[in-house]
Amino acid sequence: MVYKGNKVALDRLKEIAESVYGQLERSEVPHLELSSRTKSNIILDTDHDVWKYGEDKIKRSAKDLGGATSILRTLYTVDFIGDMIKGGKSSTLREMYYISEGWEKAKFPSQDESNKLAEDLEIITTCMREDFKLRPEEDGARVMGDITIEETNRKGEKKRINCKDDVGDSGYGIPYNVEKEKIRFKGINAKMIIAIETGGMFDRLVENGFDETHSAVLVHLKGQPARSTRRFIKRLAEQSGLPLVIFTDGDPWSYRIYASVAYGAIKTAHISEYLATPQAQFLGITPSDIVNYELPSDDLTDQDKNALKSELSDPRFSSDQWRSEIKLQLKMKRKSEQQALAKYGLDYVTDTYLPEKLTEMGLL
Amino acid sequence: MVYKGNKVALDRLKEIAESVYGQLERSEVPHLELSSRTKSNIILDTDHDVWKYGEDKIKRSAKDLGGATSILRTLYTVDFIGDMIKGGKSSTLREMYYISEGWEKAKFPSQDESNKLAEDLEIITTCMREDFKLRPEEDGARVMGDITIEETNRKGEKKRINCKDDVGDSGYGIPYNVEKEKIRFKGINAKMIIAIETGGMFDRLVENGFDETHSAVLVHLKGQPARSTRRFIKRLAEQSGLPLVIFTDGDPWSYRIYASVAYGAIKTAHISEYLATPQAQFLGITPSDIVNYELPSDDLTDQDKNALKSELSDPRFSSDQWRSEIKLQLKMKRKSEQQALAKYGLDYVTDTYLPEKLTEMGLL
Repeated sequence: MVYKGNKVALDRLKEIAESVYGQLERSEVPHLELSSRTKSNIILDTDHDVWKYGEDKIKRSAKDLGGATSILRTLYTVDFIGDMIKGGKSSTLREMYYISEGWEKAKFPSQDESNKLAEDLEIITTCMREDFKLRPEEDGARVMGDITIEETNRKGEKKRINCKDDVGDSGYGIPYNVEKEKIRFKGINAKMIIAIETGGMFDRLVENGFDETHSAVLVHLKGQPARSTRRFIKRLAEQSGLPLVIFTDGDPWSYRIYASVAYGAIKTAHISEYLATPQAQFLGITPSDIVNYELPSDDLTDQDKNALKSELSDPRFSSDQWRSEIKLQLKMKRKSEQQALAKYGLDYVTDTYLPEKLTEMGLL
Repeated sequence: MVYKGNKVALDRLKEIAESVYGQLERSEVPHLELSSRTKSNIILDTDHDVWKYGEDKIKRSAKDLGGATSILRTLYTVDFIGDMIKGGKSSTLREMYYISEGWEKAKFPSQDESNKLAEDLEIITTCMREDFKLRPEEDGARVMGDITIEETNRKGEKKRINCKDDVGDSGYGIPYNVEKEKIRFKGINAKMIIAIETGGMFDRLVENGFDETHSAVLVHLKGQPARSTRRFIKRLAEQSGLPLVIFTDGDPWSYRIYASVAYGAIKTAHISEYLATPQAQFLGITPSDIVNYELPSDDLTDQDKNALKSELSDPRFSSDQWRSEIKLQLKMKRKSEQQALAKYGLDYVTDTYLPEKLTEMGLL
């Protein structure tokens, strides 16, 4: 079965191959052009409020051996992806690296190289890795709440799964591909989406029934969220129009998790408009929460302090509120985890903290 | 709802408290006694073919401040667990650590201490942490295959989930508690259970439909498997009587994964008979496979070599077959990953490697 996303990807990959053949036919030294992926070439797209690559290009030319090998690898990879799309297969990035064992001179020296090529192909084609049927090793973030998902399974059958009634306590596992051809939202009975950093807190909200008492769809971010999780959240937030709040630990790394959901990450700047959900709001743990709720806290490490300082010059944290929170944290030199709320008992987060914070945000 | 496992746990925890009160009433300096958890006190229980603690005991006495604090913490913890069991709640180990913020002098200085106490209580009561309603942060290993599970969900409702027909492509997520009161196996239509180390390979077998073509229940081990995963596998293997094979990478750390499923791990030696499945057979990747299938491989590191050498003196690897495989690997100084089979294409593992290996083992 060839889906629309895969079909477009296949066409664009063919264009790459055709461009190289065309250049060879015209007796030109073949080359490929792609966006430069340096920090200086990342700009904030104010139309979509997400991070994107700028205008800087780099050229890979077969003039030198490195460039020629790179073009050869690209063509092998395009061929491999084409076969997968036609055969209804997918592959992990790790498998693609091993597959190249059979490509002789085009064999990747390391998986870093094959991963980078997959990203290059995304940039050239403006398609997503998932359209190429390439997936990461792990996914498995989980969802609990009253939404019904129609998943087209590996056999092409459509299955409806309600993420509250048709799943066990561990919830619905987000597959690696969450595009329209794979999953569709068929019924959303909720007032908000809450994305949660840690599995412990996700399970706490599930056990305490917060999804039911507050009509919330709970999504486990599982630390820095996988692409499929961010894309799932974006599609769900877009289709439902529901408010999306992010609930993480209170440290600079967790603020980056928020920023990657809301604005995108540097590594995936070329597909930010697919992955980022700018309406996402940060719920906490904020530095003010650490003070106001007298949470158990730990000293900031030097790395923590440097990360906070670098966030002060990051346009994604340029709002007055973020700046004053970050400055407060640098001053008090403390950080807290979301599970620190257990200081007041296992129900405190659902009975007190979340209702107070959501009310403050105008969502209750 | 008080389940039988929790009820027994509660009674035994009460006995601990009563013993301390009894000692105080008799004007004795209170003490607690538990098995010494040193390597020298781990023995192979030949009746059950699993690792267990030996006869060495240590005594915690209130004679010194450390012992007195430890007994105080134990009593607070017993109280907290009792409240959870009565209230139908559970808590992560991390939450328990934070809960102790309110225990003044009994506050745990670090989560290591609270985790260790949870293990101590297991040893004293011969119950499992899960009976105390304590759970780790993460679980989420996945299952795909034609088995029907009846899960009693958080609301006490019984739900039947077929792990092939009622789940998405990411499979059924194993909950943290897999005891009889939580899940029951209601229909097992399979010829074998295959436990797989990596998510990439699990997904490969799922995509290639190996569960259907070979009537296999596929279980994702997710690296070193969580207790719930090992317990799930043990219960499934025991109830079904099906052969269980372990499919991992070909390196010493993966052999330890096999050993922990088959014989138990040192950390959980006190509950090995609940967690270990001695009939588990190692399928591969074996060092011979690396040679016979000419797999892409990497150099052994010094740590790898040391781990292999220590396995040579580990009774769990004392069979002639294991010893000759380990010696072969030390000689060739190479290791391979299970996904290295992709060298021959994405279907090689399901079309060739697994059928050949399973035939060799007499399972096909």
